[in-house]
Amino acid sequence: MKRAEERGSHYANISLILTHYPVYNKNKEVVVSSVTTLDIHDLSRIAKTFGLGAFYIVTPLKSQIALIERIFSHWKTGFGSDYNPTRKEAFGNTCVVDNLGSAFRLIMNHEGKRPKIIATGAREVPNSIKFHEMKRIINFKDPFAILLGSGWGLERDIIMKSDYILEPIKGLGNYNHLPVRGAAAIILDRLLSP
Amino acid sequence: MKRAEERGSHYANISLILTHYPVYNKNKEVVVSSVTTLDIHDLSRIAKTFGLGAFYIVTPLKSQIALIERIFSHWKTGFGSDYNPTRKEAFGNTCVVDNLGSAFRLIMNHEGKRPKIIATGAREVPNSIKFHEMKRIINFKDPFAILLGSGWGLERDIIMKSDYILEPIKGLGNYNHLPVRGAAAIILDRLLSP
Repeated sequence: MKRAEERGSHYANISLILTHYPVYNKNKEVVVSSVTTLDIHDLSRIAKTFGLGAFYIVTPLKSQIALIERIFSHWKTGFGSDYNPTRKEAFGNTCVVDNLGSAFRLIMNHEGKRPKIIATGAREVPNSIKFHEMKRIINFKDPFAILLGSGWGLERDIIMKSDYILEPIKGLGNYNHLPVRGAAAIILDRLLSP
Repeated sequence: MKRAEERGSHYANISLILTHYPVYNKNKEVVVSSVTTLDIHDLSRIAKTFGLGAFYIVTPLKSQIALIERIFSHWKTGFGSDYNPTRKEAFGNTCVVDNLGSAFRLIMNHEGKRPKIIATGAREVPNSIKFHEMKRIINFKDPFAILLGSGWGLERDIIMKSDYILEPIKGLGNYNHLPVRGAAAIILDRLLSP
């Protein structure tokens, strides 16, 4: 992966991270959640559509890392690369790492400075930042990492240690269970669309 | 399903339709596309989050209809209804029909008049309507149906016969291959968020 000024995509300074640890399960226990293979496809395509520099998938499980790397090799160099070249293109900036700290360090290495971490989630948290405020702060230069938790959301300490906590997406009723794929699409659209 | 005034969700007058026929494949041939089971989950959850009245899945294939109905029964009354009640709730307004005309007729029966059809797609089409214009037209009273095509998009005649053709979602670069799940989330957010 190249440094921001060489990449040419519009938000090359912004990374998306989907982490599977530490997150909650439905009983509010901290767990490693399972990788949903369609997340890899959807979030790569959504990140690519909005011109992001990179999409990191974080899981500590060796078997899940191997699964993701098999999917990459199918679509990047195997049968899939010929069958659907747009998927190969989407996966060009996607990679898998075994912990969140590694993702942050990789971004720092690429960008030359620590990214500002933007935590996301479906729950109300004190001191969260509104979408329109976050949109004013984001620019085409400084590194930012938008952090998504799979399962039932990011563990509280991770949220609290972030630079920004984005307000939740509110629907029009009491039901508030967007899939992470849908939430990510709305978050990038609200923050990055012209 | 009940009439709009009895339902109580905010956009009970609006339906979402995902059709698998007639749509294009990647070679621009008109085909029946396969049902992606995660679409059923994601689009039900997204539609429910925005308070829509109904979500219709259209496929002419008997085997695929049977598959969808098995998924419904698992989550609505089977093991899944206990394991994850929020999914049962999301599926409450989801149903499957074998052709688009039936979906339109069902909506007309429920709403008491023909819905205005809003076609969507990733391609530029002359006379398309901007999101902000469509948002001004939509209200809490008149029936609208937002029509999504799976595969490589809705067949041209279906688009041309619609009441409105929504402008495509543009990303920030040349890559324009959003998954239908992500596109639907952005479309509902842009049209229906307060």
